[in-house]
Amino acid sequence: MKALIYDGEKAVYKSDAEIPVRQEHESLIQVIHADICSTDREILKGYRPDFRGIMGHEFVGRVVESDEKELIGKTVVGELNKGCGKCLYCKTGREKHCLERKVIGMSKDGCFAEYLTLSTHLIHVVPEGLSPEKAVFTEPLAAALEILHQVKVDPALNAAVIGDGRLAYMIAQVLSLTGIELTVIGKHPGKLKMFEGFAKTVLYEDYMGNSGLRELSADECFEYVVDAAGNKTGIELAMHIVRKMGTIVLKSTYAGSTDIDMSYFAVNEVTLVGSRCGPFEPALKLLKEEKVSFPPVELYELKDFEKAFASSSFKAGFDLT
Amino acid sequence: MKALIYDGEKAVYKSDAEIPVRQEHESLIQVIHADICSTDREILKGYRPDFRGIMGHEFVGRVVESDEKELIGKTVVGELNKGCGKCLYCKTGREKHCLERKVIGMSKDGCFAEYLTLSTHLIHVVPEGLSPEKAVFTEPLAAALEILHQVKVDPALNAAVIGDGRLAYMIAQVLSLTGIELTVIGKHPGKLKMFEGFAKTVLYEDYMGNSGLRELSADECFEYVVDAAGNKTGIELAMHIVRKMGTIVLKSTYAGSTDIDMSYFAVNEVTLVGSRCGPFEPALKLLKEEKVSFPPVELYELKDFEKAFASSSFKAGFDLT
Repeated sequence: MKALIYDGEKAVYKSDAEIPVRQEHESLIQVIHADICSTDREILKGYRPDFRGIMGHEFVGRVVESDEKELIGKTVVGELNKGCGKCLYCKTGREKHCLERKVIGMSKDGCFAEYLTLSTHLIHVVPEGLSPEKAVFTEPLAAALEILHQVKVDPALNAAVIGDGRLAYMIAQVLSLTGIELTVIGKHPGKLKMFEGFAKTVLYEDYMGNSGLRELSADECFEYVVDAAGNKTGIELAMHIVRKMGTIVLKSTYAGSTDIDMSYFAVNEVTLVGSRCGPFEPALKLLKEEKVSFPPVELYELKDFEKAFASSSFKAGFDLT
Repeated sequence: MKALIYDGEKAVYKSDAEIPVRQEHESLIQVIHADICSTDREILKGYRPDFRGIMGHEFVGRVVESDEKELIGKTVVGELNKGCGKCLYCKTGREKHCLERKVIGMSKDGCFAEYLTLSTHLIHVVPEGLSPEKAVFTEPLAAALEILHQVKVDPALNAAVIGDGRLAYMIAQVLSLTGIELTVIGKHPGKLKMFEGFAKTVLYEDYMGNSGLRELSADECFEYVVDAAGNKTGIELAMHIVRKMGTIVLKSTYAGSTDIDMSYFAVNEVTLVGSRCGPFEPALKLLKEEKVSFPPVELYELKDFEKAFASSSFKAGFDLT
């Protein structure tokens, strides 16, 4: 089969990789579309130095073999993290945090291939009427929905999203559906245009004064601030624009540490919520009901992976049909 | 009247300070006992460089004049923070975070004196049967109760308190009343003894391995970790011993910033809750019902303030009767 393999240094295209063999409690899935996430680009920069194997973790596919017969033939998406099933985290609904977990495209063969195997319990059936082109947004949309899973978002208050990339767009769409007054703060006027239909947009530089971030009144600040900037300017701005007793949701992951005045949190009684992968079912529901919308994915053939990785479109992926 | 005044450099005892005159919506209170908080010691080190005036913010007293006649003669305690009454924070139940707030003993004359004035709405009547010696613990106990105000503490899980000082003791008592499995981690075997009746105690050094903090299994970690260490070793240990998707409550305030890997929070979905002053009424209730207990306060005359500040007893204060 066709597959895109990380060899420890770079991505290598193979046309004759072996079709994987499913183990007990696994299903074999024929991939329809697989999307590139920024994590995949990070892997090419050395983010997962110990990983060797097929890349990719966002996909939509069709089940061809499974221990659950009713799944065969179904269009499905799948969660990333397979836990050991035995530890405290696995037994308390936190499989994605299992210390022994296997993650497709990061510590186990992924979906940049014609076939992948996945633990059957991680599979979610795509509802009828939801196209593969849209279903492939399930995983990143679920990550945005994790915010509502973790935080009671009061729609009578206000919220800001820092960032104007794809993750910020997913998050802003999800928050917007609560009806909350929403502001998106970004550095790119062109990207900010995408948010204008459902959020107030502000340029990051509007928060700058003569020496650093300018002073703000309580009215100019926000009860909820989601940092999806992807770099440390995000948390710095978040700590500046969140109200006392407000909540910062941290979605950004980036290398390196940041100098933080931790007393700030105690003195201002600010809550910081770290947030990662989220629930698939509500994501599928919102996609099927067209309550969220995204620009179409730009699809490439797997052998054209270099072009796909270089794409700057909202989302690029592979057509494996 | 007798008063202890911060002159910008040091504490100065005066025997002939003027009795303050209450303004509209204020009460005049005759102080019975006033306790020393670590913040008072910080003020002597320069924590509030702009403050000049009578020190102290933890007290129990008797109302002698008030616009609310039914308060006169009552034994009372009082909250610290008086807001402007007009801003967003004051109007949304966050007076203690008002940017224009006046704080007794920090930006307004405090309670290390025979009399103080306080906004009447900040006054809480001490219930009958609760002695002044115990009522003086209301303010720090309220700060501990702020944790339950902010965080849903599930008693079926487990919790750790880092620190073995007074604040840690208040917090441990409050958490213990939920029935939760509780561990207290401190650096002083002598102080840890105080917690033995209601918590498992562990020495900080037990978490050290050959090179820094030793690796822990999920079972050895905690769903809730309260950092009341008072220095940056607290947050470092908290981030190490909290479970994935767990909660760190940050009670410590200390000068300086700390190098923090912020991605840790996102990747592990850890929540950090900053926590400060808390609700007085439940503190008075727990004290009256003797559900919490503290070693007695060591009382000094105001003129012996140097001895009082140097005291290493659990709590030192002034007798102003």
